[in-house]
Amino acid sequence: MQIKHLQRVANEARGLAIDAVEKCSSGHLGLPLGCAEMGAVLFTEGLQFSSENPKWINRDRFILSAGHGSLFLYTWLHLSGYAISLEDLRAFRQMGSITPGHPEFGETRGVEATTGPLGQGVGNAVGYAISGKKLALLFEEDKSLYDSHIICLAGDGCLQEGVARESIAFAGHMGLDNLILIYDSNEVTLDAMASVTQSENQAQYFQSLGWEVFEVDGHHLEKLADALRRAKEADNGTPKVIIAKTLIGKGVSEVAGTQKAHGESGAKFFVSAKKSLGLPAESFFVSDETRKFFAEQGEKRSQVFADWLGRFEVWKQKFPERLTLLEAKSLSFSDLLKKFPEFPNSYNKATRDSCGESLNRVAQDLPFLLSGSADLFGSTKNYLDGQGDFSRGNVAGKNLWFGIREHSMAAICNGIAYDGFFQICQATFLAFADYLRPSLRLAALAKLPSVYLFTHDSVGVGEDGPTHQPVETVSGLRVIPNLNVIRPADAEETAAALALALTTKKRPSALILTRQKVSLIEGVSSDEKRLGVSRGGYIIRREKGVLKGIFLATGSEVQVALAAVEDLGAGYRVVSLPCLRLFAEQEKSYQEEVLPSSCLARVAVEAGVSDLWWRYVGDRGKVVSIDSFGLSAPGEEVFMKLGIHRDSLVKVMQDLES
Amino acid sequence: MQIKHLQRVANEARGLAIDAVEKCSSGHLGLPLGCAEMGAVLFTEGLQFSSENPKWINRDRFILSAGHGSLFLYTWLHLSGYAISLEDLRAFRQMGSITPGHPEFGETRGVEATTGPLGQGVGNAVGYAISGKKLALLFEEDKSLYDSHIICLAGDGCLQEGVARESIAFAGHMGLDNLILIYDSNEVTLDAMASVTQSENQAQYFQSLGWEVFEVDGHHLEKLADALRRAKEADNGTPKVIIAKTLIGKGVSEVAGTQKAHGESGAKFFVSAKKSLGLPAESFFVSDETRKFFAEQGEKRSQVFADWLGRFEVWKQKFPERLTLLEAKSLSFSDLLKKFPEFPNSYNKATRDSCGESLNRVAQDLPFLLSGSADLFGSTKNYLDGQGDFSRGNVAGKNLWFGIREHSMAAICNGIAYDGFFQICQATFLAFADYLRPSLRLAALAKLPSVYLFTHDSVGVGEDGPTHQPVETVSGLRVIPNLNVIRPADAEETAAALALALTTKKRPSALILTRQKVSLIEGVSSDEKRLGVSRGGYIIRREKGVLKGIFLATGSEVQVALAAVEDLGAGYRVVSLPCLRLFAEQEKSYQEEVLPSSCLARVAVEAGVSDLWWRYVGDRGKVVSIDSFGLSAPGEEVFMKLGIHRDSLVKVMQDLES
Repeated sequence: MQIKHLQRVANEARGLAIDAVEKCSSGHLGLPLGCAEMGAVLFTEGLQFSSENPKWINRDRFILSAGHGSLFLYTWLHLSGYAISLEDLRAFRQMGSITPGHPEFGETRGVEATTGPLGQGVGNAVGYAISGKKLALLFEEDKSLYDSHIICLAGDGCLQEGVARESIAFAGHMGLDNLILIYDSNEVTLDAMASVTQSENQAQYFQSLGWEVFEVDGHHLEKLADALRRAKEADNGTPKVIIAKTLIGKGVSEVAGTQKAHGESGAKFFVSAKKSLGLPAESFFVSDETRKFFAEQGEKRSQVFADWLGRFEVWKQKFPERLTLLEAKSLSFSDLLKKFPEFPNSYNKATRDSCGESLNRVAQDLPFLLSGSADLFGSTKNYLDGQGDFSRGNVAGKNLWFGIREHSMAAICNGIAYDGFFQICQATFLAFADYLRPSLRLAALAKLPSVYLFTHDSVGVGEDGPTHQPVETVSGLRVIPNLNVIRPADAEETAAALALALTTKKRPSALILTRQKVSLIEGVSSDEKRLGVSRGGYIIRREKGVLKGIFLATGSEVQVALAAVEDLGAGYRVVSLPCLRLFAEQEKSYQEEVLPSSCLARVAVEAGVSDLWWRYVGDRGKVVSIDSFGLSAPGEEVFMKLGIHRDSLVKVMQDLES
Repeated sequence: MQIKHLQRVANEARGLAIDAVEKCSSGHLGLPLGCAEMGAVLFTEGLQFSSENPKWINRDRFILSAGHGSLFLYTWLHLSGYAISLEDLRAFRQMGSITPGHPEFGETRGVEATTGPLGQGVGNAVGYAISGKKLALLFEEDKSLYDSHIICLAGDGCLQEGVARESIAFAGHMGLDNLILIYDSNEVTLDAMASVTQSENQAQYFQSLGWEVFEVDGHHLEKLADALRRAKEADNGTPKVIIAKTLIGKGVSEVAGTQKAHGESGAKFFVSAKKSLGLPAESFFVSDETRKFFAEQGEKRSQVFADWLGRFEVWKQKFPERLTLLEAKSLSFSDLLKKFPEFPNSYNKATRDSCGESLNRVAQDLPFLLSGSADLFGSTKNYLDGQGDFSRGNVAGKNLWFGIREHSMAAICNGIAYDGFFQICQATFLAFADYLRPSLRLAALAKLPSVYLFTHDSVGVGEDGPTHQPVETVSGLRVIPNLNVIRPADAEETAAALALALTTKKRPSALILTRQKVSLIEGVSSDEKRLGVSRGGYIIRREKGVLKGIFLATGSEVQVALAAVEDLGAGYRVVSLPCLRLFAEQEKSYQEEVLPSSCLARVAVEAGVSDLWWRYVGDRGKVVSIDSFGLSAPGEEVFMKLGIHRDSLVKVMQDLES
């Protein structure tokens, strides 16, 4: 290793970060400065990558969990040849730039995850590590084709978070030895010295959770490189943590080592700082030696990549069937739907059951499909029969037992989705969707095609009571942009919802499923139902004669509306609206066909809060809803008590008209 | 200790649990059976309580974090003389009973926390421990008056959760030696043997986080009692964990020790189980010896309580001023408002700043007020100046530094609120409200008067970008029942919102505050603003002449609406709607006064999703909103780019009318 180069490069990276923050008077300097030596080691001999092929399957995945230190990522990606120019660095945090305040997946090459909300990246890295373990199975005959590691850089902010703590416990249990966590231990959090809020024995903590611990001076180039090398070499069934002691904001002596170094305040000392770092006053300076050094590095990397490509071509010839996984295109909605036989009219099970059955029917056809549950496979019903359990001894297993760790489940599944090879369904009770909401939001923001199965979807849960009865949760999820929340009414709608979720590319989907039985709705063909679901809503019972009123409903309440219409007579329509977002995205003409503006006698019914329904029932409509928490009693009784039954619907509709 | 009694009592408690579950064919038997010996120890010599005075200040607080084991609590509360009858046990999980599926605070005497969502109770216990440490300061001269401990029973399900992990780290750091966690280590989770999902070294784990560890056979009465006694006696600056190895479902040999024992399935073996436990076939059987035993226990407890009361009366005479804390009644809304001077017209700061200023103005008058932040005091501005920091060396400190642990912050604050002596404001960025949402939901369900301060409330955050810009979060919170979400428009509205939040008794409040400056809105008196906030909404600018159109707005967007009206001319009204829930709860006549049904030209404006606004703008109105994620750029530019500015409002209103 050419220490002389690396120290200079580290300081020039510091200069770039200082200039970028100084230019926009915003951003976080502490980490880019404190971790500059780490960057120098990682982006030279530390990481395996090809900046020209940022999606190279055998690259090391580097996840900056401490996303506020985005300049760390941008400066080092820039120096090592990724498609980030000095102009892009100058446009840090400006409208339309590829260098936003926090790293955003899909916006910038080399950014492996959208991070910033703390702790998430640690979970994402665990997901990448699972994906990596499974990919490695394809290359067992020539392991040199796949020796990728997952390297995650996190600070105290990440490691204090529950989502990281759960993920660390899970990774240790699963023995993910392709995972290396670098802990930027700078003894400072945003608000204070870290000693104000933590005093744990970090090494002992990680060891208790099954991790191997390396401790190192985070500014000592050789020792850092050595620790990283040893961590990579040890395929010993344990994840590794490198605890690197660093000085936050190193390079700006006025603030270094204190919480003031965290944010932008260090940048006001940019003149003296750059001088003390031996840098010229010129802003965004990179020396010729550094350019030359990285050019040489790049050439070496190109050669490594070319060699790999040659061997990869040989492998492709030898194992053409394995390409099916790597190049697997997910089926189209209609192709996937064909895999589901129609459910018989007598079918009468909970939608969680029909979802599980549908999932198992397509599992054989989707070699990239994984399924996970937060200690609830027995209740969420998404276990893939005969597909084995993922564990340290069986990485081929397709069922992921996440334990009672909803938040890390979702963060880990985001990591699997970021890697892009495997598709994952993850499940818990709807009431616990709140536990994983921060990760779900990131899936929506990062446009990940993740599938969430949320069962036990209403007060129909019954005896478990209000803690376990979601009333606001469906609507709470519906407001998240770029998320399809789908609440199907019966087994056919559920099959369509699942097919839709599994074939939606740039958007996560949340299926909202019952615990209690719902019979198959008659009088509409399965084709109509399936098409209707894909449009977000459709007429599930058409009126006879003049249209007198419309019921709008989702999930198990569609049956209640249908029952009310039996009592009311011929002129009433029932609209099933499993996905409000998709319905809102349809052509106006289709919306008008389903909900004609001439008919304002509209009653929405849902066993949850009313807030979102006024958009569709309008000034003159009504909502039959549950705007308070539920009750512990048998489910049927709770529905009755809270007014979700045919008689109340009949009465509300009649009152509307009179 | 009378072992003979305790073993019999434990088995009779098992019988009660089996009968209750068998009767309703629902519920969880594993913990009540597995922890019966623990119950026998706790509810005899283990816990200090007075069943006739369930709110005795010097009682030990027992929190069942594993809330699914509610029958454990109900049966032991019944046996030890609380107001839970055999009839109540027979009505387990039935409509209107005081024995719901999961324990609900306020519904049942002796229930200290609403639990069920896993991990929460551990956080609640930490909150109780903080409250206890602070209460103890009042009794320093006679420590026998206050030697309460917090005992929390949790299983693997709780301890795997991030919220518990954060809470454990925080408790260890703070040295809460009045806290004893009993870990029901039965090697089983709901779905599987625990070994499928965990393999950590639990003792080492707790030690690394600063806890003292006791390990014990959970069925050995003497050893359990001894461990509990030693844990209580050691005032050594560390919280304690008793790792009790138990056999889940012990007593039903057909399922004991396996995950099948967790739920209700064991109850089908009730005949053979009761026989093997030496119990008669009679259901809900309690022997005369047991009744007599507990009656004697009760007499002793009554004597202990009477003795305490005598000494307490002496203390009251001696320290009358300390009663102010114990008996502190929070001020009324109007009284509290009087504490805030009016803000000058020139005032021009972010509402996070004015909130912090108002909070500090009343801090002196509210001796029970605490304030906490998740590593963001510098940004959330709710630090109480001169009131000290809570720490192991200074439990009198009123500022709580929670670290980057939002979820446990909220769970801990719930614990403080459950105890009922201290009032707490807790703060983080609005984008991170998702991290604590499960605890916030429980605060709303349990009717806790907690105050949440969520700053950085919109895309106005600017450069930090979409990860940090809430767009759906305000509406996502509004759908939670029994939660006041208040988004004030300027400093006066903020003062009113804070006063309202601090004086609302049975409902938590979330204040939604800006990072960017907002000037004081002129033309309305501060009295009108303050009254208007308490009604959820009011006319902040009244039209002149005929009413042509109404803008509805919240927070910083009220200013945008006011600017648009300047351009549009005299006939336009602006309604500030800081709290949709409170406005919806007003008399119809007031709502009609503010939003006359004769005027349907209505435009709502909010820098967030549109979904909830249709209720108020109706069929013929429009919403100017942000229905996608935000952007990283200076805040003003982001508002412009996403259409939240006066020109767009003017155009939308004009289009409506044409």
